[in-house]
Amino acid sequence: MSLSMHAMTVGQFVPMLKNLTRILEKAEAFAATKKIEPGVLEGLRLAPDMLSFARQVQLASDFAKNSAARLAGVEPPKFEDSEKTLGELKARIARTIDYLETLTPAQLEGADARHIVVPLRTRTLEMDGLPFLQKWVLPNFFFHVTTAYALLRHVGVEVGKQDFLGSV
Amino acid sequence: MSLSMHAMTVGQFVPMLKNLTRILEKAEAFAATKKIEPGVLEGLRLAPDMLSFARQVQLASDFAKNSAARLAGVEPPKFEDSEKTLGELKARIARTIDYLETLTPAQLEGADARHIVVPLRTRTLEMDGLPFLQKWVLPNFFFHVTTAYALLRHVGVEVGKQDFLGSV
Repeated sequence: MSLSMHAMTVGQFVPMLKNLTRILEKAEAFAATKKIEPGVLEGLRLAPDMLSFARQVQLASDFAKNSAARLAGVEPPKFEDSEKTLGELKARIARTIDYLETLTPAQLEGADARHIVVPLRTRTLEMDGLPFLQKWVLPNFFFHVTTAYALLRHVGVEVGKQDFLGSV
Repeated sequence: MSLSMHAMTVGQFVPMLKNLTRILEKAEAFAATKKIEPGVLEGLRLAPDMLSFARQVQLASDFAKNSAARLAGVEPPKFEDSEKTLGELKARIARTIDYLETLTPAQLEGADARHIVVPLRTRTLEMDGLPFLQKWVLPNFFFHVTTAYALLRHVGVEVGKQDFLGSV
């Protein structure tokens, strides 16, 4: 395997999302053992003006599927952000992985030079594929996966760096 | 600019470490305004069995310089991990950036196929450059930068996602 835009997107996101699934399973086990009310873990935040745990997971999904689709030059699928439970968040991640696995190396060939346009809430992001990957896609994706992990770690779910990294 | 191992290491780490520097500056300003005792922010953790804020910054530095060096086939420089203050951590990051900027695209050419051997505490990590980048380098680097950010965010330092992403 050599370096490619497919390796840096699909090949980067899918294993990390599988790790996130196992982290969500540990959160489910923790909630069951401690009899934690539904919605408590899903609503965790490190600061009151921060997005909740559920949103962190949804955003990890969004940055993965939307970025890979845009780099492949196809319309990203819209997911509803209606997940309320850890189980639903796991299903969201599974759908994201299923979608990512439909994108082929050929579709992402040359995507480093593709002109990318992303409509944001307050502005439009416009740049070539490579800086898009470096400055937007990877930092945002890892930011939300790590923050989801940190929220669970903070409240005592038994997760460690190995869960974040997966088998390596 | 096209996709390369240099772009995915030096080109990824240097801007993120500059963002981390600005985050450290915001922490320094916060400590000054709130008259926070030296060592308090540096010792922050989200759980008692987690590494401190200072270690998160040192590890972000280590994963950046050590990984880029190994991928370039040169011996990574050893830094002492003696930083006790936010100012010293900023200097550590500056030294890391200076080192990264000595590594040329030519040195990292073909590094995706280079055989990498990393001595860890309890085992030896051994794999080709591309999986090393995907499974070890990028996840670890972003993990520690995000965790450092999250620790400050948690205690009220006025940092937001924009500080993490930098100008994009």
